[in-house]
Amino acid sequence: MEPLNTLKQRLNEVHNLKLSAAVLGWDQQVNMPPGGAIYRAAQLETLSRLSHELFTAEETGRLLETAETQSAELDYDSDDAALLRVVRHDYDLATRLPTPLVAELTRVTSLAYEAWATARANDDYAAFKPWLSQVLDLTLQVAEALGYQDRIYDALIDQFEPGMKTAVVARLFEELKAVQIPMIRAIASQRDRADGSVLRREYDLEKQKQFSRQVAEQIGYDFTRGRLDVSVHPFTTGFGTGDIRITTRYEANWLPSALFGTIHESGHAMYEQGSGPSIAGTILEGGTSLGIHESQSRLWENLVGRSRAFWQHYYPTLRALFPEALTDTDQDSFYRAINRVEPSLIRVEADEVTYNMHIIIRFEIENDLLEGRLSVDDAPDAWNAKYEQYLGITPPNNRLGILQDVHWSGGAIGYFPTYSLGNLMSVPFFNKAVEAHPDIPAEIARGEFGTLLGWLQENIYRHGRKYMPAELFERVTGEPISAQPYLAYLGQKYGELYDL
Amino acid sequence: MEPLNTLKQRLNEVHNLKLSAAVLGWDQQVNMPPGGAIYRAAQLETLSRLSHELFTAEETGRLLETAETQSAELDYDSDDAALLRVVRHDYDLATRLPTPLVAELTRVTSLAYEAWATARANDDYAAFKPWLSQVLDLTLQVAEALGYQDRIYDALIDQFEPGMKTAVVARLFEELKAVQIPMIRAIASQRDRADGSVLRREYDLEKQKQFSRQVAEQIGYDFTRGRLDVSVHPFTTGFGTGDIRITTRYEANWLPSALFGTIHESGHAMYEQGSGPSIAGTILEGGTSLGIHESQSRLWENLVGRSRAFWQHYYPTLRALFPEALTDTDQDSFYRAINRVEPSLIRVEADEVTYNMHIIIRFEIENDLLEGRLSVDDAPDAWNAKYEQYLGITPPNNRLGILQDVHWSGGAIGYFPTYSLGNLMSVPFFNKAVEAHPDIPAEIARGEFGTLLGWLQENIYRHGRKYMPAELFERVTGEPISAQPYLAYLGQKYGELYDL
Repeated sequence: MEPLNTLKQRLNEVHNLKLSAAVLGWDQQVNMPPGGAIYRAAQLETLSRLSHELFTAEETGRLLETAETQSAELDYDSDDAALLRVVRHDYDLATRLPTPLVAELTRVTSLAYEAWATARANDDYAAFKPWLSQVLDLTLQVAEALGYQDRIYDALIDQFEPGMKTAVVARLFEELKAVQIPMIRAIASQRDRADGSVLRREYDLEKQKQFSRQVAEQIGYDFTRGRLDVSVHPFTTGFGTGDIRITTRYEANWLPSALFGTIHESGHAMYEQGSGPSIAGTILEGGTSLGIHESQSRLWENLVGRSRAFWQHYYPTLRALFPEALTDTDQDSFYRAINRVEPSLIRVEADEVTYNMHIIIRFEIENDLLEGRLSVDDAPDAWNAKYEQYLGITPPNNRLGILQDVHWSGGAIGYFPTYSLGNLMSVPFFNKAVEAHPDIPAEIARGEFGTLLGWLQENIYRHGRKYMPAELFERVTGEPISAQPYLAYLGQKYGELYDL
Repeated sequence: MEPLNTLKQRLNEVHNLKLSAAVLGWDQQVNMPPGGAIYRAAQLETLSRLSHELFTAEETGRLLETAETQSAELDYDSDDAALLRVVRHDYDLATRLPTPLVAELTRVTSLAYEAWATARANDDYAAFKPWLSQVLDLTLQVAEALGYQDRIYDALIDQFEPGMKTAVVARLFEELKAVQIPMIRAIASQRDRADGSVLRREYDLEKQKQFSRQVAEQIGYDFTRGRLDVSVHPFTTGFGTGDIRITTRYEANWLPSALFGTIHESGHAMYEQGSGPSIAGTILEGGTSLGIHESQSRLWENLVGRSRAFWQHYYPTLRALFPEALTDTDQDSFYRAINRVEPSLIRVEADEVTYNMHIIIRFEIENDLLEGRLSVDDAPDAWNAKYEQYLGITPPNNRLGILQDVHWSGGAIGYFPTYSLGNLMSVPFFNKAVEAHPDIPAEIARGEFGTLLGWLQENIYRHGRKYMPAELFERVTGEPISAQPYLAYLGQKYGELYDL
């Protein structure tokens, strides 16, 4: 097995270059002073070029081919067999991308990120527009280089959710729209059944920090192998299974931001902290796709964190921490408040019923931009029109509209649908865990999360990237991905809440 | 000049890999959770190996040789001529180190750092000893690979202070001992002329933070191109001229720690922030040697920060910030307190008169260990005996003794003498600035530092690594390095303070 070992050594170098770049990326968003931007861009360009060159070198292909030939008899579920499958997939994908294009994309997106942060702060779409154009141009080059059969977008989504097709996403999204838009309208006429104003009272930032940290720790995020910091846009990143970091943002007059943001990122992070010992430190560690990743963050955020059971345990603690803000609010009212459905402008703070609409808008705009039906100049108007059409509200400015997300500045086009795919997959995963351990809801109501975490660890986390997303999903749930379980969950939870 | 441009591109990649490793190193000391250690070691090993391989490749040598031939007519002071001189020096040095040795040193020192931090916290020299042995073994291999004529240590010190010889250091150190040990004894009999107890009162950490930041900013450290954090051992590191960071540590009952530590690190950082625009982002940016670096940190810390003039301006501010602690202390008493001479166990908090003794002890022990006159087992006893002999005090434990410094865990053996070389050079540099601008002391007394900073910027900082340390020193001061100006400065300042 000499070629396999040589291949592994080479892949570990590539992996370490990527993890190094991740450290630089985390630092850029959490710590870097403005003067560092141009130097950081150059550093990331070098790391990206070197890792791409090393991975796509002919020698990697030769070693891979020889290792594949010699490993035909390996057990399908073994780490080595999985490694070869994953590397084959990644290698075929990566060798289609020319090194200069990868380096240029890294350089431009590093600068575009700074431009976006400033443009967003100043509500200045014009300042971001040339960067968005550059990113779109490069994205089209990426799609052409990767290749696709039906839609440009197929090439892009495949980078984040291997195997997923634009047509499938579009069909799932039509099913969601057909049920969720009428549901949003029906709820609008029952809006006073939940009052969210309590969440906009004054919540001391230090106490929010303390509570967020406590919840993250108790649901199972391991702080000896991670940390919680502040950034403009919350995210999770990892530098090996032993160092998986999350960020959040605290707002004094909007409790859900940090609270559910932290649970959400903890879900991502627990997935990555859970890679099995035999794959930790190798390219198999981490998450297998963004959709699966999001299914974990949403499972913890929504199915656990926004459940009645969860607050049965935590509400007394929260109320003791914020006696002034919560004095006249009982547990049921609080539960209704955090599950209040109200079309809003900001995706990351949207409720479960409206969330997918935010994603669908971005998915449709991305496709319109890429397929030439929409210009960068007209994008803000298109954005605002869709918000009116699907959610019945219009952004008053671009800061609350098209400038709100970090993704496009980072070249992550084709990424957004994975959020909704994550929503859709979170419900069957949770249902399966409860089917195996019917006590899970009662345990959650006692503040115990070990059984659920253990089941996720055993069935999902420990495999890291060993199985492709659709393969993993079907392996665990026995079914292909569909919109129905999620819509059933929404119907039941919000039917009860809003008496639909 | 095609080969020169190709060479520059290659060198920029090497430089970016090193700066990336510096980001990972900063993060390791400031932010990393314990679980990250083994992964971080692997990442640093990869970055170190790749940059070493890229730099020492035969192709680099070929490009360098061709560029040298084609550049014979370049102006000596041009960036390109300086680049070729610096690269030739570094290339000859680096090609003598085998890649596996460099990688092994990086791997071992990354783990040794963690072991040291734990051993120091637990006062457990036995736990650090095997790591020290490993580091020493590797250091001997480094010295053999680099080569030396007289002393093993020549090869090591040359890495940090190019061109410096062990025999020269030993001679300078004997001159220092001859004057400073008697001076320390003479002061001991006059000790009550300065009372340092005021510095051990209660100083609120947040206010210390505020004052340290204010002083750093006002002397000229640019926070838009840097930041100030907390770490176990204060340090300065840079990721390009636009992002030069410092750390400090705050102690509630020991004011000088953060106060002078911050000024010291600001001195290092201003040097690196001052690289001229034409060399920023290239391998010529940064400092030319650790000795020159230390001359800048010590100049700001001692010749500025511990002067009467400085406190004429800052004492009212400090007293207003800490009215309780400083109520019964006038400016003269405070000046005497911060310049009180008292043999202590901790190098980084030693006064100007005793500081060099700490260095001399380390220099002598390093040479004794390397040349086989001392075993790792006996090193703590040797350490303690020298403290008794030169300073008249004995460490009560190894935490306050041989475990206090980070350097050996990082493989930085040969590094310590540069601290004293920096002390020796700081005085002629400052004298030269005052000779050119006699108003500097009066400006300092008004809290104005622009003239001094401008002179340092013009004469030292902007050159980055363009000139070798001895060359730069003689260019600026017109003389070779000697012990006399520093001893004259000590004699005058402390003669007055202690009525010697």
